[in-house]
Amino acid sequence: MIKVGIVGGTGYTGVELLRLLVQHPQVEIQAVTSRAEAGKPISELFPNLRGKLTLNFSDPKDADLDNCDMIFYATPNGTAMQTTPELLAAGCKVIDLAADFRIKDITVWEKWYGMTHTCPELVAEAVYGLPEINRQAIAQARLVANPGCYPTATTLGFLPLVKKGLIDINQLIADAKSGVSGAGRKASVPALMGETGESFKAYAVSGHRHLPEISQTLTHIAKQPVNLTFVPHLVPMIRGIHATLYATLQDTSLDLTELYADFYQNEPFVDVLPNGAHPETRSVRGVNTCQIAIHRPQSGNTAVVLSVIDNLVKGAAGQAIQNMNIMCGFAETMGLEGVGLLP
Amino acid sequence: MIKVGIVGGTGYTGVELLRLLVQHPQVEIQAVTSRAEAGKPISELFPNLRGKLTLNFSDPKDADLDNCDMIFYATPNGTAMQTTPELLAAGCKVIDLAADFRIKDITVWEKWYGMTHTCPELVAEAVYGLPEINRQAIAQARLVANPGCYPTATTLGFLPLVKKGLIDINQLIADAKSGVSGAGRKASVPALMGETGESFKAYAVSGHRHLPEISQTLTHIAKQPVNLTFVPHLVPMIRGIHATLYATLQDTSLDLTELYADFYQNEPFVDVLPNGAHPETRSVRGVNTCQIAIHRPQSGNTAVVLSVIDNLVKGAAGQAIQNMNIMCGFAETMGLEGVGLLP
Amino acid sequence: MIKVGIVGGTGYTGVELLRLLVQHPQVEIQAVTSRAEAGKPISELFPNLRGKLTLNFSDPKDADLDNCDMIFYATPNGTAMQTTPELLAAGCKVIDLAADFRIKDITVWEKWYGMTHTCPELVAEAVYGLPEINRQAIAQARLVANPGCYPTATTLGFLPLVKKGLIDINQLIADAKSGVSGAGRKASVPALMGETGESFKAYAVSGHRHLPEISQTLTHIAKQPVNLTFVPHLVPMIRGIHATLYATLQDTSLDLTELYADFYQNEPFVDVLPNGAHPETRSVRGVNTCQIAIHRPQSGNTAVVLSVIDNLVKGAAGQAIQNMNIMCGFAETMGLEGVGLLP
Amino acid sequence: MIKVGIVGGTGYTGVELLRLLVQHPQVEIQAVTSRAEAGKPISELFPNLRGKLTLNFSDPKDADLDNCDMIFYATPNGTAMQTTPELLAAGCKVIDLAADFRIKDITVWEKWYGMTHTCPELVAEAVYGLPEINRQAIAQARLVANPGCYPTATTLGFLPLVKKGLIDINQLIADAKSGVSGAGRKASVPALMGETGESFKAYAVSGHRHLPEISQTLTHIAKQPVNLTFVPHLVPMIRGIHATLYATLQDTSLDLTELYADFYQNEPFVDVLPNGAHPETRSVRGVNTCQIAIHRPQSGNTAVVLSVIDNLVKGAAGQAIQNMNIMCGFAETMGLEGVGLLP
Repeated sequence: MIKVGIVGGTGYTGVELLRLLVQHPQVEIQAVTSRAEAGKPISELFPNLRGKLTLNFSDPKDADLDNCDMIFYATPNGTAMQTTPELLAAGCKVIDLAADFRIKDITVWEKWYGMTHTCPELVAEAVYGLPEINRQAIAQARLVANPGCYPTATTLGFLPLVKKGLIDINQLIADAKSGVSGAGRKASVPALMGETGESFKAYAVSGHRHLPEISQTLTHIAKQPVNLTFVPHLVPMIRGIHATLYATLQDTSLDLTELYADFYQNEPFVDVLPNGAHPETRSVRGVNTCQIAIHRPQSGNTAVVLSVIDNLVKGAAGQAIQNMNIMCGFAETMGLEGVGLLP
Repeated sequence: MIKVGIVGGTGYTGVELLRLLVQHPQVEIQAVTSRAEAGKPISELFPNLRGKLTLNFSDPKDADLDNCDMIFYATPNGTAMQTTPELLAAGCKVIDLAADFRIKDITVWEKWYGMTHTCPELVAEAVYGLPEINRQAIAQARLVANPGCYPTATTLGFLPLVKKGLIDINQLIADAKSGVSGAGRKASVPALMGETGESFKAYAVSGHRHLPEISQTLTHIAKQPVNLTFVPHLVPMIRGIHATLYATLQDTSLDLTELYADFYQNEPFVDVLPNGAHPETRSVRGVNTCQIAIHRPQSGNTAVVLSVIDNLVKGAAGQAIQNMNIMCGFAETMGLEGVGLLP
Repeated sequence: MIKVGIVGGTGYTGVELLRLLVQHPQVEIQAVTSRAEAGKPISELFPNLRGKLTLNFSDPKDADLDNCDMIFYATPNGTAMQTTPELLAAGCKVIDLAADFRIKDITVWEKWYGMTHTCPELVAEAVYGLPEINRQAIAQARLVANPGCYPTATTLGFLPLVKKGLIDINQLIADAKSGVSGAGRKASVPALMGETGESFKAYAVSGHRHLPEISQTLTHIAKQPVNLTFVPHLVPMIRGIHATLYATLQDTSLDLTELYADFYQNEPFVDVLPNGAHPETRSVRGVNTCQIAIHRPQSGNTAVVLSVIDNLVKGAAGQAIQNMNIMCGFAETMGLEGVGLLP
Repeated sequence: MIKVGIVGGTGYTGVELLRLLVQHPQVEIQAVTSRAEAGKPISELFPNLRGKLTLNFSDPKDADLDNCDMIFYATPNGTAMQTTPELLAAGCKVIDLAADFRIKDITVWEKWYGMTHTCPELVAEAVYGLPEINRQAIAQARLVANPGCYPTATTLGFLPLVKKGLIDINQLIADAKSGVSGAGRKASVPALMGETGESFKAYAVSGHRHLPEISQTLTHIAKQPVNLTFVPHLVPMIRGIHATLYATLQDTSLDLTELYADFYQNEPFVDVLPNGAHPETRSVRGVNTCQIAIHRPQSGNTAVVLSVIDNLVKGAAGQAIQNMNIMCGFAETMGLEGVGLLP
């Protein structure tokens, strides 16, 4: 049984962490902080938690986070770096669900996130929390940078092809689509249902913060720079990411589905679908699974990988708990055994 | 050809007014004001207007509204009352799409809207702009209070029964459902797609501002106080209001559909459906029509009236233009002849 | 550990039963039948079950249902009555999620369902499976008629008021709204997304099959006939029912929220919200809870009860499992402890 | 004034043709056929047409189509080819909104559409009705093959780059997304709201019928074979197509937005957005416009073209009327001047 604290519990990532953690057999939730909602019962803001969690939100300064074994930051970018050093010093382990520790090159991070990093040394220490590539390092880590939602879906989709050197890494395309919960739970005009419902659009085509994150990982795996075009789109639904990935094969004789199935055969949360399948985001709604199918249209040299996750689970809270399980020596799937909510 | 000014053109009511007015043969749009967006092309904010309108938003103080023949206020409550007196003095006619001039009893208005009214004398003068009950007064008016969306659907649904004294007015129930555009285009958490999508709820059951508005009109028609229970709900869609109305009949021998059809036979924008029909909000999407069907389940003494409108058209911008047409002596349907966008 | 068979597993009720049953610690799923899909892996039709269930659909004649301890019928109306007698004779217990055994008056049933009942004697024996009113009888039953979705939300909402004789039972109104999954998973034009998306409508106002079911239960509780007006509506979302109930109070001095909270204090799946609350269907998405709030607008004599359930869980599969738990002597909440998926 | 007949008027393409044609100043609708609905008022099936169209559906054999000047086929594939020869012989002009006359190579057509073509000679004669490339031929045509929805959005997006030889035509990628109305208005499980709502997926990745259609056009323009990977996706919304197109530039010194704006400057229905813009499907809801933006992420050699249309308008009924206008010598924009319904 570990004591868990959540910093910033009023967003979609926060409530999803809570949904999963209240069902986790080895977790006791100690504190959930929110400046704005301090003192209010958490289940008043999120009535799905009625009867499951009796805590109130607490002010960060009163939350006694030091005594927690594990801290999750479910805060806006730039917040975790303020207080992570002291919590690590107090002996807590930390998982940041925001972007503060994801990009190793501080200059790159500062350019994309528009602020000065306050603890670059912790960036160097932090482990990028994608278990499918960093499981052992995660098990040793004090500080884990939980991957972004798009990077999770995209990286898992490209990984076998890049790792095995099967494609031209100078021309990768990721056409990614996300539900609106990716934009978070904060007052904003562009995320109104009146703006996002019954419509579809691309955004940030000139450059999205998840681009350097994906490139960093794929470059690390390829051991040489990759060139990725990443175009995110907004889907009029709440949960789910679908990444459609395009790459040019250097060898068209391989059975790619078999290759992927072999590659991921021991991964509890990556599910390779049979030949000809088309994964749907709803099949993984509420669960930590990434479902992947791979096609080679007209038997040509273009590989098309279809990769779906729930952006709030494998793309955020679920993956954070998977990392927690690894860091704490629990079974990796503990508390993450649910079945997708279909329909 | 008249010169039209719109005060506050960045909301959903504003863009809907623009959509309809750019197609109106007797209207020249002179100015559309917005403090926040002054100087920006309107069609940059609303790309559906590209090629249809080349104006920029203008600052209210530069907009030369005095020279307009007709002013529409598409502003938050409490704004129109600030400048309406001077525009009327300058000879403009004014239609307020907000609530500033809807409630005759200033005490009631101030209680529900939580502010002090700055020009009560204009409230007395203002005509409530529901043409189906006030057509002649509208034709003479300088100042029209455009009805709220719920009040339009509800009042048109109850009107024949109340007017003809066929029901017990001490027990009226209006169970009303609205799409999210009714909440406007302003940054807010409750109107995020993440909050309103794929979910349904009632709100403001203890009291909604449209209750006194509906009660005022029905009381005026009944010539005695009515007792109305009004429960609004939020539907996960953008446009449309569906009011389901319940009343106890004092006489069950009448053919209610025939009665409604007769009552509304000369109304260009009220369409009574045949017996057994169930109007859908999509049938009136984008148009100024109110479709109504009336049922008497199990041949009992409860009348069930189903009334649908597009909240942004007959519930706001379309009705405002209908009022403008009446005030200016144009054909009442001018510029409002479109066909509902189905599906 | 009991052996469970599901007759008709290709609909939404079927997949929801499977989602919940594969996580139930005392259940072994023996067979899931489907004539049309016999031989196909269930997880091919429903990929959310991949890795959770390795069965194929089986043809009813090969399914060896006789050896099951518990049979669920997730079939169209009129199917369960064909084979229930032989399964009961073989010693199985049976829960029918369709309507075959819900209405005690065979004449009424045959009128509303348009067919001849083949085993009226079993209708007499069957227990109506709403645990909140029939828990003890369910515990003894061989055959349970699982309630309809609207009846569950409506009956639980009216129950305390009717049971305690606080309202005029001659004028009950239930304005109910359902997501589209209530229409099932069968090819049909009216349930296309092109027909139901972004629109709202009432349907079956002249009479819906759930009306006699609700009336039967409320009449039984009131010990005299009730008069109910029931108007169902279709909401452009997948899951969820919201019933808005109206009744005239005979005494306005009571604290209704307190009364409801007391009434349901021992019920694990009925959650009475505090005064002023508005339940949202999303708060119970995927779970077996009914959330209820009760209002008295303008402190008048009209009670407004807001009652929400997930139509596929408390309105179908979840309640069926709750009944199974009671019939089998398991903890009533076993396998139903999940947290609602919000957002 | 011309007499128009519509064969097959009960689908989404049919009702959209009717919505536009009842507002067209030079059109008199003579007959709308439907075997299944013959005799029923059209406005009973489509209540948005109440008061706008008083015709009933007629049986094809009674419809006297021979006397029409213009026939639209809004029928399933394979229907138009049955009766087009006789209607042409009778002197009618014909526009087929289905695929019967789109593919010049009969072998290719028969492979993709799985049937034998009954009038190959008319395929040779038919003009592919994309006015932006075939305006003059359309003006002379008796028979026009109206383009598919995906081909319209995709072809207009690639056209300037291909025509001017600026890209590597051996590696074109079209990642296209469509609302569900593209699947038509026919009973089907996959198009239920329960299946398509709140979810996103790719489909037909191994090969979609619109692939040979797009390839044929682009090959014709390039004057050499192009190699296109085309991946369609289903978006949980009703109307709209968004095509995201990827191509490798051979020259990165050009201002692509300027080039597109020049290329399309005389086109009434192609609107090139300024640099940095992201078109939204809602901006063209209900109208015949294709909005296009073009990006070059990270100033690299990959061009990303974003192209949106309303699949039922520029992708079907609107483009058909544009073709009719050209064939009949009307102003090309006649009856197509509406403004997109936003929000």
